Amino acid sequence: MDIGKVVGTVVATRKDESLVGAKLLITQPLDLAFEPVGQARLMVDSVGAGVGEIVIYATGQAARNALKKREAAIDAAIVGIVDSCEIDPILAGKGKK
Amino acid sequence: MDIGKVVGTVVATRKDESLVGAKLLITQPLDLAFEPVGQARLMVDSVGAGVGEIVIYATGQAARNALKKREAAIDAAIVGIVDSCEIDPILAGKGKK
Amino acid sequence: MDIGKVVGTVVATRKDESLVGAKLLITQPLDLAFEPVGQARLMVDSVGAGVGEIVIYATGQAARNALKKREAAIDAAIVGIVDSCEIDPILAGKGKK
Amino acid sequence: MDIGKVVGTVVATRKDESLVGAKLLITQPLDLAFEPVGQARLMVDSVGAGVGEIVIYATGQAARNALKKREAAIDAAIVGIVDSCEIDPILAGKGKK
Amino acid sequence: MDIGKVVGTVVATRKDESLVGAKLLITQPLDLAFEPVGQARLMVDSVGAGVGEIVIYATGQAARNALKKREAAIDAAIVGIVDSCEIDPILAGKGKK
Repeated sequence: MDIGKVVGTVVATRKDESLVGAKLLITQPLDLAFEPVGQARLMVDSVGAGVGEIVIYATGQAARNALKKREAAIDAAIVGIVDSCEIDPILAGKGKK
Repeated sequence: MDIGKVVGTVVATRKDESLVGAKLLITQPLDLAFEPVGQARLMVDSVGAGVGEIVIYATGQAARNALKKREAAIDAAIVGIVDSCEIDPILAGKGKK
Repeated sequence: MDIGKVVGTVVATRKDESLVGAKLLITQPLDLAFEPVGQARLMVDSVGAGVGEIVIYATGQAARNALKKREAAIDAAIVGIVDSCEIDPILAGKGKK
Repeated sequence: MDIGKVVGTVVATRKDESLVGAKLLITQPLDLAFEPVGQARLMVDSVGAGVGEIVIYATGQAARNALKKREAAIDAAIVGIVDSCEIDPILAGKGKK
Repeated sequence: MDIGKVVGTVVATRKDESLVGAKLLITQPLDLAFEPVGQARLMVDSVGAGVGEIVIYATGQAARNALKKREAAIDAAIVGIVDSCEIDPILAGKGKK
């Protein structure tokens, strides 16, 4: 899984039937300093997340599992909302083990 | 899923039988500013998309699910057509959480 | 799926039994201008492709589906031979939507 | 699989039911010199790993297999703790074959 | 599949039960000139490969298929040993089609 921030929403009238009623959230991956890194992706929400929240997301079969829709046209889903992260600054740095 | 723009089509006479009759669309991934990012990929259309449209695409099993062809030689499909995106410019920026 | 050019072949005597008899082709991914982009990968041919041809390839389960070998140690396959591509030069450019 | 270092933990009260009780560890991928490389990811622990340890992690179905939870919303798991690595410095270098 | 060079081994006492007895080899991906490219990954051997050999590896379900262990916590495996590669230098170059 990865950590990201929900930064927007998408409206799509024509879409796969498995996406009807799904909340489509644009999620920006974050690095260990909570700065944006890499490209934002489109996720289906499974935990009641909203714009501005820091979330955990999963991809592939894990996303369909979260939504209990193994036959869905879905490859990414928000599966948790982050309360807090505890990161060891020395371990996360560039120092040798 | 990701957001992209359909920029072209491919014709292939010799191909896997599961691709016969499929519309093969070249789709360029877009970033949050709707600018091209990364490499274009080849998708099978499942929602009636055409060149010039902004679309949602999915990969892997999700693509085969969209086409109801779990045995197909397909790993990417267009699964929606974007009507609109609403992106929070501050959240999408580089500001710290 | 992606578009690539077959640039070589590999011979391997010791290999997984599912690869025995398979044609192993080194395929270089191409960008929208048909220039090499990213790293070449090794593919199993499923459509009679040969060195020098521009092909469509698929990865993961889609590759095993193309070869009708779901139990194979194969994660990439050539699934079509490109006759022609039609790419809209303006859409494929950097112009804003 | 890949090698990484556990650098932190995440607390999430609202999450998929398959993540309840799971230990969520932030893991930084390491290169051959044990230096950080690429982006840290969030993993579920399956072997009793803790912050500061060098671990082996797996992604996708392999992660769900490690946790014996094929229906879980999990796409990455720690599957081993590294005791030692033996790397041939010449082979790992840039010398031609 | 991809081509790589085995550059080292890993010892891990605590690990998923599906990895017990498995030979864990650190494999460095190679480009068309047999130079290292990208990050080394950890693979399970399925063909009797050893340090210094040029190998073919596969990822995801293909790796578990090679090991006949579909329930294993394994996402990468060595599936062949390269005897020789034949690469067309002009095709592999940057020349336009």
